[in-house]
Amino acid sequence: MRVAIIGASGYSGLELVRIVLRHPELELVVVTSEQRAGQPMGESFPSLRGLSDLVLERNDPKAIAGRVDVAFAALPHSASAETVAALHSEGVRVFDISADFRLRDSETYRQWYGEHKAPELFGKAVYGLPEVYREELRAGPSLVAAPGCYPTSALLPLLPFLRAGLVETAPIFVDAKSGVSGAGRKLEEGFLFGEIDGNARAYKVADHRHGPEIEQEASLAAGEPVQVTLVPQLIPTIRGIITTVALRPKRPLTTAAARAVLAEAYAGEAFVRVLPEGETPSLQAVRGSNFCDVTAVADPRGGALVVLAALDNLVKGAGGQAVQCLNITQGWSERAGLGEAPWVP
Amino acid sequence: MRVAIIGASGYSGLELVRIVLRHPELELVVVTSEQRAGQPMGESFPSLRGLSDLVLERNDPKAIAGRVDVAFAALPHSASAETVAALHSEGVRVFDISADFRLRDSETYRQWYGEHKAPELFGKAVYGLPEVYREELRAGPSLVAAPGCYPTSALLPLLPFLRAGLVETAPIFVDAKSGVSGAGRKLEEGFLFGEIDGNARAYKVADHRHGPEIEQEASLAAGEPVQVTLVPQLIPTIRGIITTVALRPKRPLTTAAARAVLAEAYAGEAFVRVLPEGETPSLQAVRGSNFCDVTAVADPRGGALVVLAALDNLVKGAGGQAVQCLNITQGWSERAGLGEAPWVP
Amino acid sequence: MRVAIIGASGYSGLELVRIVLRHPELELVVVTSEQRAGQPMGESFPSLRGLSDLVLERNDPKAIAGRVDVAFAALPHSASAETVAALHSEGVRVFDISADFRLRDSETYRQWYGEHKAPELFGKAVYGLPEVYREELRAGPSLVAAPGCYPTSALLPLLPFLRAGLVETAPIFVDAKSGVSGAGRKLEEGFLFGEIDGNARAYKVADHRHGPEIEQEASLAAGEPVQVTLVPQLIPTIRGIITTVALRPKRPLTTAAARAVLAEAYAGEAFVRVLPEGETPSLQAVRGSNFCDVTAVADPRGGALVVLAALDNLVKGAGGQAVQCLNITQGWSERAGLGEAPWVP
Amino acid sequence: MRVAIIGASGYSGLELVRIVLRHPELELVVVTSEQRAGQPMGESFPSLRGLSDLVLERNDPKAIAGRVDVAFAALPHSASAETVAALHSEGVRVFDISADFRLRDSETYRQWYGEHKAPELFGKAVYGLPEVYREELRAGPSLVAAPGCYPTSALLPLLPFLRAGLVETAPIFVDAKSGVSGAGRKLEEGFLFGEIDGNARAYKVADHRHGPEIEQEASLAAGEPVQVTLVPQLIPTIRGIITTVALRPKRPLTTAAARAVLAEAYAGEAFVRVLPEGETPSLQAVRGSNFCDVTAVADPRGGALVVLAALDNLVKGAGGQAVQCLNITQGWSERAGLGEAPWVP
Repeated sequence: MRVAIIGASGYSGLELVRIVLRHPELELVVVTSEQRAGQPMGESFPSLRGLSDLVLERNDPKAIAGRVDVAFAALPHSASAETVAALHSEGVRVFDISADFRLRDSETYRQWYGEHKAPELFGKAVYGLPEVYREELRAGPSLVAAPGCYPTSALLPLLPFLRAGLVETAPIFVDAKSGVSGAGRKLEEGFLFGEIDGNARAYKVADHRHGPEIEQEASLAAGEPVQVTLVPQLIPTIRGIITTVALRPKRPLTTAAARAVLAEAYAGEAFVRVLPEGETPSLQAVRGSNFCDVTAVADPRGGALVVLAALDNLVKGAGGQAVQCLNITQGWSERAGLGEAPWVP
Repeated sequence: MRVAIIGASGYSGLELVRIVLRHPELELVVVTSEQRAGQPMGESFPSLRGLSDLVLERNDPKAIAGRVDVAFAALPHSASAETVAALHSEGVRVFDISADFRLRDSETYRQWYGEHKAPELFGKAVYGLPEVYREELRAGPSLVAAPGCYPTSALLPLLPFLRAGLVETAPIFVDAKSGVSGAGRKLEEGFLFGEIDGNARAYKVADHRHGPEIEQEASLAAGEPVQVTLVPQLIPTIRGIITTVALRPKRPLTTAAARAVLAEAYAGEAFVRVLPEGETPSLQAVRGSNFCDVTAVADPRGGALVVLAALDNLVKGAGGQAVQCLNITQGWSERAGLGEAPWVP
Repeated sequence: MRVAIIGASGYSGLELVRIVLRHPELELVVVTSEQRAGQPMGESFPSLRGLSDLVLERNDPKAIAGRVDVAFAALPHSASAETVAALHSEGVRVFDISADFRLRDSETYRQWYGEHKAPELFGKAVYGLPEVYREELRAGPSLVAAPGCYPTSALLPLLPFLRAGLVETAPIFVDAKSGVSGAGRKLEEGFLFGEIDGNARAYKVADHRHGPEIEQEASLAAGEPVQVTLVPQLIPTIRGIITTVALRPKRPLTTAAARAVLAEAYAGEAFVRVLPEGETPSLQAVRGSNFCDVTAVADPRGGALVVLAALDNLVKGAGGQAVQCLNITQGWSERAGLGEAPWVP
Repeated sequence: MRVAIIGASGYSGLELVRIVLRHPELELVVVTSEQRAGQPMGESFPSLRGLSDLVLERNDPKAIAGRVDVAFAALPHSASAETVAALHSEGVRVFDISADFRLRDSETYRQWYGEHKAPELFGKAVYGLPEVYREELRAGPSLVAAPGCYPTSALLPLLPFLRAGLVETAPIFVDAKSGVSGAGRKLEEGFLFGEIDGNARAYKVADHRHGPEIEQEASLAAGEPVQVTLVPQLIPTIRGIITTVALRPKRPLTTAAARAVLAEAYAGEAFVRVLPEGETPSLQAVRGSNFCDVTAVADPRGGALVVLAALDNLVKGAGGQAVQCLNITQGWSERAGLGEAPWVP
């Protein structure tokens, strides 16, 4: 199957290149980058020298559509919609890792991202969280919107408790600590090594655009409106996100019972690992892989439940998730191209 | 004033050495270390070569007491009590940065730390959080128990809201991310560079011994029992702790109103900086200093209030706090020895 | 082909596990660890949970020999020889990544490592640097001693110049900066995060045991004794080594001419990339891969030539190199199991 | 003494702010920044909130001259000359940490930096390396050009051997590993956290503009032309530079004899610490301080001598050095404002 990666030079795009190059069913035939168009991949990215002869090209959907079967869009939020729509209209199956097709309410989209560039497609994508929407993915949708690191790390440990009606729905606190690659290769002073190393900081507290997306999926699972207060934070690491969700159980719940909820929800999942009691998630254990490790701890005095998750934001929180979705739509093993063991040390 | 630092070779002890060396009113005359006794400071710690001719000695309270006026005890929890009691009984004023004299309930102490080694002194110390116990410190107590990084970073942003009765008291979630020096120079595999760099992990979720200490002081401020669920985490930095406290206001509260609560509580404080709206705490802004930066953000939909703090665990979360206490007991400027600007970059 | 990894719990052993798990021709059947014997891999190493059901076992060559065709020995220097000899005598092909069979002079071995534990095998291994000893590897030796990060990073850029007689042979300065995983998972204070982060230091200057190994292979290439002064250094990164070799050309040499020497030497090599003029090696470009990037720069005034190399010490400087050797001995593609793109970012 | 810091918002400027704020003889009255003019220091730099009420202003030498006695210029190379000349002509004593007045040959300057903006002052400054030019500094020059991190870390361990005629003068290899703050707060992709963390790379090998400056001072010390090949490298740390200089002794030299050369050269120096045999320099031991640690190791076989140095590039390699020079010109203690113990951990 011939693949295009649109926006191959960002961090998420590069990770997609890595995954597609090793995927047994995929052939990488198009990679785009506006700034580096015309350069061979191996010149632009010395790490890829000797691994691919492809030349980066401009993002021209018309010119690309006929040459590929599937496209991964790794463009910035709000810039993605137009390209996705153009490729889609030419019959290319598109897996988008931006937020442009993840929301269901157009007003919410407008509030956080501005005018949508392809309103006719808005709301048409399958939300690409395989552990929740596997059936929809199996139906082979032509457009999939894979959620990113904040939503995935919050939703996977949280949804089973909402579905079972075990916890209060407002407020739910999501305290998420992200590596800097979550922001892409953004040229801002705040992302310089001199500003990040040895540092950690919160930003956009209770005001981050991924909050409403988490609320959307949480509310669907709960069957009622859920209110999430998201506290995003940057920590001095390149990859990974580790998230704590603070909950109040409706009725007292032991740690064992809480873990059982997760274990049942994710039995048989290839990439969600429910940790044994006494273990806690770490970025190291998932680094470079498509795993999401989750666990739950109840305060023994009752009244408080903490669920946690860790994943690699560039894999399970970006392109790896999209490839997992593709694998499902094609009936391939979900692990195809995603079997690499985490990077330790 | 002649000073001893008991346990000078740990990370907290070393930072105390740095502070005392520059303090205009203090003369460092005794430094102890069991493992390095007999070695000159500058040999044991190449950074100190040329700065001090002192030789590390064994921790022998009898031999030390006559030579100093004040001692800082930087020993591990539960190992500290015996030395503190011995020095204290010889008339040395002691500022202890362990947890041994911070709790008020002996049963709670026993549960988390084991048998207390100096029960006769238990409960006799002033809790060395200057922003709360300044009056008690001004009275010149002979024993001060300075709180560490987890309690200080949770209590400073939290207490004003409890005192004013503005928030629900159970459960309160404290999500704290600590640099590794918080654990001292512990020789465990989990603290190797290969295990920490690029990593972040939670540990002892809802089961950390500093949880009860936070609850003690929070309950005193609230005038009723407060239930705190502490989620401690390690992030890949040496110094600093950044803490989020998730609260439910009893009545809707705006961010401006919440900030005003903090601003009023800390008006005139030398080391607590209430950040302007739109700014969030960072480790960088406090690194190497005795500052604790705090702020508050209310979810605009009501129902959720997040307060945050950042401090340097080896300064405001350890020896800097103890020196601030000493300054108060002596009527010196609180800034004496603590005026260094944070380390940026 | 059934594989054992002896010493699977060290950093080099873990990396071998990762490589063998993805190698299309290999089946991992035995993993050993003295300290963790009896534990399932996934319990001992949370990153491997769900990827392997193997249980770590004690290193008992007799019990292992019959169950495997090939063994990778990832034991510490001087501890390896005994196990290697035992497995070898039972007919297992052994690829050793310790230094125990890399030297040719037994007196030199004794001086740096002590008494050899398997003198009958000493000198019998093929030196597993495929770019130099490919023919010997093709002959299918039963014992291969794969060189580590210091020798590999120094020899690959250096040997072509010695072979061609283009540079003075004494002194040659090798200035090598290594990530901390080069020392394994050693529980020493100097390897704590608090001691390495933000730090860099030299150690064993002109007194490191890998110096004589570099001299051995350099002298063989030069056809005369070569004197190498090795300056090993630790830098604050987990993986990777970047090495500068300072040379004096016998006759003036341009950068273009020097690069041509490298380009000719490594034409067709799968894993040695000679960088274009103007590019310099970086750890990032090789991280997680079996690549070794090399280049040469001549001082335009003549009289000085600098050659540089970068590689991942746990792959091309350890198990990846050993697997490359195995691939050659079996006639497989050299890239089998080693095709992963470097980890960027 | 009233002080201006021109270019206060760069990393070197900020460090100067920290030093001047604690200096007992100095009062900071002017801080400039083009981009942040009009902002209070504490708003622009949250770390400084509460420490200074100064407002950043534009760099207008006429408006500044009358208000200060001394100015530290922390502007980029080639941009500094004009401001320095303007302040100087108004009678302000200037300590410049750019390279604009460090070279003695105007053609060399033009080749590496372009046209000099104040040719009438070129060659008029005292080279502000106190350990070499203390007498000239004592004479109270009105313009001092303090050398940066590459020259200082190379020259301090090297010069004594050249002065004594003990080593060959060509080629001398300087292998220098620098933290990223050496490049200032430059907004380039290569300095993003995602590009530096876990990475190390060489750049401008044998082609860096500080090479000629090292050669200038080395040649003056040797009394003959010295040829230096500089290999600059970036390592993943914010502060610090650690440098190896590879030398060939004219006659065999022991490590003890080589150390004695350094010990004699730097006896009585406040900031150069000659390490005991067996110790090697580290960034940690000098971090945040004005120290430069040096040592020498001779290859026991003769023929090779390695000298090493470590310093903090923002202190001894920038503003700390300039303040040390000022202290000398004023007859103050050289340690004034520079007595802080290194930052460990």
